[in-house]
Amino acid sequence: MTASFPKNLPAIHGIRSIADIGASRKRHYTYLKTFRATFKGKLYAIKPGAEPIPEFPDVPVYARVTDVPAGEPVDFAFIEVPREQVAGVIRDCARKGVKLAAIFSSGFADAGTDEGRQLQAELARVIEEEGNDLHVIGPNGMGLYYPRLGIRWRPSLPTAHGGAGIVAQSGGLCNLLIHGLNAAGMPVSTALSIGNAMDITALDALEYFKDDPETDVVVAYLEGIPNGSGKAFMRILGECRKPVILVKGGRTSSGSKAARSHTAAIVGNFAAWQAAARQAGAILVETFEDVIDVARYVTCYGKARAKSACMLTLSGGYGVICSDALASHGVAMPDFSRNESLKESLRQQLVSIGTSVGNPVDVGAFIYEVDKLEAIARTVLADTSVDVLIFEIAPLYVAAGIRPDVHLETALPAMLERVKGRVPKPIVVITEDIGYDDVKADISARLRGMGIPVFDDISHVARTFNYVNASR
Amino acid sequence: MTASFPKNLPAIHGIRSIADIGASRKRHYTYLKTFRATFKGKLYAIKPGAEPIPEFPDVPVYARVTDVPAGEPVDFAFIEVPREQVAGVIRDCARKGVKLAAIFSSGFADAGTDEGRQLQAELARVIEEEGNDLHVIGPNGMGLYYPRLGIRWRPSLPTAHGGAGIVAQSGGLCNLLIHGLNAAGMPVSTALSIGNAMDITALDALEYFKDDPETDVVVAYLEGIPNGSGKAFMRILGECRKPVILVKGGRTSSGSKAARSHTAAIVGNFAAWQAAARQAGAILVETFEDVIDVARYVTCYGKARAKSACMLTLSGGYGVICSDALASHGVAMPDFSRNESLKESLRQQLVSIGTSVGNPVDVGAFIYEVDKLEAIARTVLADTSVDVLIFEIAPLYVAAGIRPDVHLETALPAMLERVKGRVPKPIVVITEDIGYDDVKADISARLRGMGIPVFDDISHVARTFNYVNASR
Repeated sequence: MTASFPKNLPAIHGIRSIADIGASRKRHYTYLKTFRATFKGKLYAIKPGAEPIPEFPDVPVYARVTDVPAGEPVDFAFIEVPREQVAGVIRDCARKGVKLAAIFSSGFADAGTDEGRQLQAELARVIEEEGNDLHVIGPNGMGLYYPRLGIRWRPSLPTAHGGAGIVAQSGGLCNLLIHGLNAAGMPVSTALSIGNAMDITALDALEYFKDDPETDVVVAYLEGIPNGSGKAFMRILGECRKPVILVKGGRTSSGSKAARSHTAAIVGNFAAWQAAARQAGAILVETFEDVIDVARYVTCYGKARAKSACMLTLSGGYGVICSDALASHGVAMPDFSRNESLKESLRQQLVSIGTSVGNPVDVGAFIYEVDKLEAIARTVLADTSVDVLIFEIAPLYVAAGIRPDVHLETALPAMLERVKGRVPKPIVVITEDIGYDDVKADISARLRGMGIPVFDDISHVARTFNYVNASR
Repeated sequence: MTASFPKNLPAIHGIRSIADIGASRKRHYTYLKTFRATFKGKLYAIKPGAEPIPEFPDVPVYARVTDVPAGEPVDFAFIEVPREQVAGVIRDCARKGVKLAAIFSSGFADAGTDEGRQLQAELARVIEEEGNDLHVIGPNGMGLYYPRLGIRWRPSLPTAHGGAGIVAQSGGLCNLLIHGLNAAGMPVSTALSIGNAMDITALDALEYFKDDPETDVVVAYLEGIPNGSGKAFMRILGECRKPVILVKGGRTSSGSKAARSHTAAIVGNFAAWQAAARQAGAILVETFEDVIDVARYVTCYGKARAKSACMLTLSGGYGVICSDALASHGVAMPDFSRNESLKESLRQQLVSIGTSVGNPVDVGAFIYEVDKLEAIARTVLADTSVDVLIFEIAPLYVAAGIRPDVHLETALPAMLERVKGRVPKPIVVITEDIGYDDVKADISARLRGMGIPVFDDISHVARTFNYVNASR
């Protein structure tokens, strides 16, 4: 394994051995057990006395990481010893040639006490003395989740790997993000729970993800960045060609109070963050659900413009609500009634939908005429006035089976895939939460497989478009 | 059955017989079949020639509703004849003594043509001539959904009945609302899909729901109200002691264009609607999802104030995001750090959670100590600075089973029910969409049974509180 910048993070790809330092019976060997369940490389347990662990007879145990035989490198160390012992363990790791360590132990600056701050300062000195040979994630973080090599910090975390990179100043939120992205069909490449971010900071993580070939989209939950690093932060965001979805914790007075007690972060001025995100092209969102929704869109279409939409809906009333929601998020619904070229195109497609073509197009009456739907969808999406097509598939109509010869659950996705192949503009689908969970799950999975994102309701779509448009 | 005001709608409760007028083979006798599946009263089919329908040998068929024997009253008529025949059918219904009819047939004012408008004007004359004996829902609407007596317009509509009353100017949206409310555990008392609202208007529907003993909460989707009825609308809303959740279709220019082409409704000025709703105490919301979310809250707590919250969370980072989302929707998170009486109460409860009590309270570390959670929840909720408690139950922690002896899926709801019994203030739960669908469904159903609403994410909670607070 070769060390490399930023701060050895690319070495993650080549981790072949892990030392769990401080594995303890008291904590039921939780982390050791979790590594062992899915990590295929070599595993070491480091604990005082170095007595073998009966539950894991195949895991070599040493008293110190420096006791691991010279011919056996340790690529990654997970440190869960009491806080007073962390500095010594870090020295040992450096001596052993460990390139990357995650300090799970807490009670440093996060404790909010003089003692904690002193311990963190001492730790900082030790790390600095070791130069660039060893880099550290944490303390007070969950460390590294790298599912491609089976590196996880919780037995419940998914084993699937994908293209979403996560850096978070909160372990709990990191768990939510990993699970939430997976549940929405977007598994993770690497997640870094950086805790107090003493050595490896959010900037290092972003620098890593920027060039990481396994990462397509970056999600960052940050409460603050180190003093004086604003310019570097902007530079990295600006250089990143991948969509960066950014949640800034502590944008209000309530939130910043909560953040202070959480990671002692200096949260800074939110307006400055907004300006920075806009200038650097990051997508600044507000809630957990926003992250998942925006990720649905950008993993399919990047930051493709969504300033004007055409909507095909099964219910006139729902179309009205959707028009309102889009308009109030700055997304226009072009008026087709005076668009002569569009009407001519529709006529050429042999589509007659009455004398006028509204937007939203109420397709409820011919939902079973899939060819007709396809012609309409292709024609309106191709129109220069339209950025994006929104298609409502209310699961109840799919489930209803009024026409048993037409299988809408396959016919509608297949139709949208054909349209997508012909017109290179985003298509998104709304499938409301109205029961029919199986139908919804089935159609969502099918569409996701085609690279077409599925949302629960227009509010999610409208917010997503608004966030993406603001970042362009 | 006795006729009564408003416009015979209370007669719904006593419907013992239905005539499906215009039931046709071409439409596969869909409506007849649907009534027959669940309606326990007497059913008649009215069709030219009066030939028996082989599929339904037990349903008497007559050429005209006036042919039904004199001793057999027809309480409700569902009219699906071609539009030209509707006026004649209405005269027949009046002669037969039908009190309530739903006209499904369309092509009246909704067609946007002179012919359609003329037909509607003619129909209006006929109805007026019949005085107050017969009242009509529609035309161009789905009519009446009254699950307690098995009256439904679609075979897929739920058979469960509950306390949500719906009036909607859109049949498709009415379907979404019925399914959505049921999926969220809130079945419907009566739904009225009023279409062109020629005779029975939204005002009549609201007047009915206001006094309907089966209805606890009213949901209205309106695009416009009849000219000159603004004062009456305000009066009825003001008199209604039940929460009214109102969606106004066409609040933006895009939306009002869509509404015009949908029901030819004059949508009016949205600011006026906002002012009216605020003055009359209606809860004016924006999207379909908003309706469901607000209904979750008001069915449990009415319009109980939610201007300040305490949150118990499993993740510090999630707590920060939640604080931000609440603050930006006008909900305060009282700072407990200087609240000496609260700290003293906690001490008396033998609860030590460190030197300071933050808000949100990060309870991740003692999620398995349910007694301690209960003491904290009860104490903070009882504090005068707090209107409402938000408890995050991330399903992954419930599913994790780190402590097999503690069954969080039952222990946490039971704990919250005890707190609810002691402190008469709203408690809401957030269970994120992060997979674990079974756990989530199970815990949500359990909490719903206790009258504790469950939301997907903080954005739903924050929007709901904001809407409810604005209506008080």
